[in-house]
Amino acid sequence: MINKLLVANRGEIAVRIIRACKELGVETVAVYSEADKDALHVRLADEAYCIGPTASKDSYLNFTNIMSVATLTGSDAIHPGYGFLAENADFAELCRECNVTFVGPSAEAINKMGIKDVARATMADAGVPIVPGSDGIIKDKEEAIELSNKIGYPVIIKATAGGGGKGIRVAKNEAELLKGIAITQQEAATAFGNPGVYIEKYIEDFRHVEIQVLADNYGHVIHLGERDCSIQRRLQKLLEETPSPAISPEKRQEMGEAAVKAAEAVQYSGAGTVEFIFDPNTGDFYFMEMNTRIQVEHPVTEMVTGIDLIKEQIKVASGEKLKYKQEDIVFNGWSIECRINAENPEKNFMPSAGKIDMYLPPGGLGVRVDSAVYPGYTIPPFYDSMIAKVITYGNTRQEAIDRMKRALSEFIVEGVHTTIPFHLRLLNHETFVNGDFNTKFLENHDLTSKSE
Amino acid sequence: MINKLLVANRGEIAVRIIRACKELGVETVAVYSEADKDALHVRLADEAYCIGPTASKDSYLNFTNIMSVATLTGSDAIHPGYGFLAENADFAELCRECNVTFVGPSAEAINKMGIKDVARATMADAGVPIVPGSDGIIKDKEEAIELSNKIGYPVIIKATAGGGGKGIRVAKNEAELLKGIAITQQEAATAFGNPGVYIEKYIEDFRHVEIQVLADNYGHVIHLGERDCSIQRRLQKLLEETPSPAISPEKRQEMGEAAVKAAEAVQYSGAGTVEFIFDPNTGDFYFMEMNTRIQVEHPVTEMVTGIDLIKEQIKVASGEKLKYKQEDIVFNGWSIECRINAENPEKNFMPSAGKIDMYLPPGGLGVRVDSAVYPGYTIPPFYDSMIAKVITYGNTRQEAIDRMKRALSEFIVEGVHTTIPFHLRLLNHETFVNGDFNTKFLENHDLTSKSE
Repeated sequence: MINKLLVANRGEIAVRIIRACKELGVETVAVYSEADKDALHVRLADEAYCIGPTASKDSYLNFTNIMSVATLTGSDAIHPGYGFLAENADFAELCRECNVTFVGPSAEAINKMGIKDVARATMADAGVPIVPGSDGIIKDKEEAIELSNKIGYPVIIKATAGGGGKGIRVAKNEAELLKGIAITQQEAATAFGNPGVYIEKYIEDFRHVEIQVLADNYGHVIHLGERDCSIQRRLQKLLEETPSPAISPEKRQEMGEAAVKAAEAVQYSGAGTVEFIFDPNTGDFYFMEMNTRIQVEHPVTEMVTGIDLIKEQIKVASGEKLKYKQEDIVFNGWSIECRINAENPEKNFMPSAGKIDMYLPPGGLGVRVDSAVYPGYTIPPFYDSMIAKVITYGNTRQEAIDRMKRALSEFIVEGVHTTIPFHLRLLNHETFVNGDFNTKFLENHDLTSKSE
Repeated sequence: MINKLLVANRGEIAVRIIRACKELGVETVAVYSEADKDALHVRLADEAYCIGPTASKDSYLNFTNIMSVATLTGSDAIHPGYGFLAENADFAELCRECNVTFVGPSAEAINKMGIKDVARATMADAGVPIVPGSDGIIKDKEEAIELSNKIGYPVIIKATAGGGGKGIRVAKNEAELLKGIAITQQEAATAFGNPGVYIEKYIEDFRHVEIQVLADNYGHVIHLGERDCSIQRRLQKLLEETPSPAISPEKRQEMGEAAVKAAEAVQYSGAGTVEFIFDPNTGDFYFMEMNTRIQVEHPVTEMVTGIDLIKEQIKVASGEKLKYKQEDIVFNGWSIECRINAENPEKNFMPSAGKIDMYLPPGGLGVRVDSAVYPGYTIPPFYDSMIAKVITYGNTRQEAIDRMKRALSEFIVEGVHTTIPFHLRLLNHETFVNGDFNTKFLENHDLTSKSE
């Protein structure tokens, strides 16, 4: 069993991991950048060490410093959370070399899923449905034009090293295709150090439906149902829920089995998410990508299955066998998560860093808050703008919605702008309440207050 | 359906009721004493009105003022919460006369259960097991002595109008009996306006196990399992849990059926609790009393059954039929509640009123907080000292305990003393962890820090 775990992250996910460790009796080591010395994860961990200056590349992405702290503190495991080093195969490999357990899948699995064209090919071989597109990286303009004509516009250009909504671009015609390839290649070279792009048919009006999987080191893989993350703004998820209003029990089983196949194809271990494009008109679904880490929206799955995903990650990394079989997994009720960001929804979601004067999270039955904010905390402007995840549970979707409206209406955050008013408008929107929406919903509906 | 509801209470239960109303789309009216003008329930309700000076008798117990606010605001219902007017049959009767729905049982049911010797007789008639004792009020010393000799010492003297651990006294011999009767009669006359006392055999080393019942206006009664409230200090509950570590599924069914019989015997309606003395050595149980209102510890039942008891109260009061049958009720996992009081456990639990400077309730998976406190709030010294109920849920009892320890260890309350350190010692105590304790546990184990 893991005795001491270093949390190589910050914010709410660092707090989430520390909480799970405390409940398991695992000692915790926090690391932090100079900007984060007053952060909640630093206060909650058993030990905390500064690993460098504010910039992520010097601190939360700094392999050497993080591994030094792990070694010096006698940590036998590192949990990367999400973002930062969570999908960095080189870091997973370094952990293996240093005999420190990386809480996540093997470097090989990360690579196979992280390099998007390899993932496509692997999925195709495993019998997981993929979107029509290129066989690997696009070699030249001519190939791109020929393929796009064959599969039909619009097409989507994706950086093979991208992910999480970054490094992708849609083209409606040949001119946009050539321009898009050039820009995406350039951006990908800068952002990911890999300019390779590939092309897929662009499916419009789809729902983003993803399947949570859980695997141990002995080849046992189960799925924990879906999450519907179709409510996105510029490819960033703002609200997630489970179950999906669009998924029947039969479809859940079908997609779940495909996700298990996907995980098995890369000898996956730990918690992972297989994201699918789901066409609500036909019921068809296609592999989008696999996130080889815990996801921001994992709590909604915990609420309806009763399974603590972070504890499961730690147990699997410790070498325990999964104690659940697929038939043990029961889905009860409905859960919704709102990502509350310190942003001004009236000013194009401009980040709103600063000091939080008054802070009182919502409480009561069916309300969960995962946050790293406290009264008097100053949000640094250097990292992401999420300040809290509010998760509600209800026996029905309507109860989960009503509870979320109640929870957000009592949530007090003073001193910065937040997306709470935006979320309340979303929760009151007829189309959202009906459940009949796709990833274009926020593009097609202006939910800023000016629109009312 | 109820459209507008007046909450005739304060503190966390007022907030709890307002939350349920918001989720149901019911408008809310708060009332408050002069001392409570900055209270959270005042801020959260749609409307709020001052009903009098600080003293409860002038405000929260002031029939006329409360009913005036109800009438003036067009409230069609009043929820009394617990304490104050919750078990006041005269107030329930006044509501009926004024055509305002009282969210609770009829005045007749309140009376039958509130007058303890009548309740004993009613239960005996209904076939619910009762403790051996007097047939009604003790008439004179001679009767008391004769009866006590017959049933054997120790005996317990109870004020017929008492309840909630008040107005009771144990006697080990004749001298204590005579003195105890005199004192209890005097106290009861002052506190409850009724000097009547009765006598029961005092069962030592019992567990306090109570059954939650739910009934509609059409004679349908179900039970929602038990709560174990054996962790008490001077008859005040400090920690409650469900299920009870001492109750088997068969015993749960047996006690549940007895509780349903008890409720049926008084044509009960709404949420109520039948409290039993449970003898863990023999498995026998005896009717203690019925609380004809929602209880402080109702959340643990909500956590394991998924049923929102306050919403059910409001629906039943609106005239809806119960939508659950007994066989629909499923118990999942384990839930524990700690009542966190603003008291100094190192100084004999002396109340510690004052301003809360910093306040951050715990969060994350499986943690629920019901509270009316916010950062900067000043706890008035005039009412009860409970500042928060922390409720945890786990798949097992051990997980619920580990989660509670985690939650309490991260709970920040600065400016006043709290019972958090005491609760943490309790949660770490071997006897508590083993689950093998009775109502004498805190009497027999000194959990102040001096004892360590």
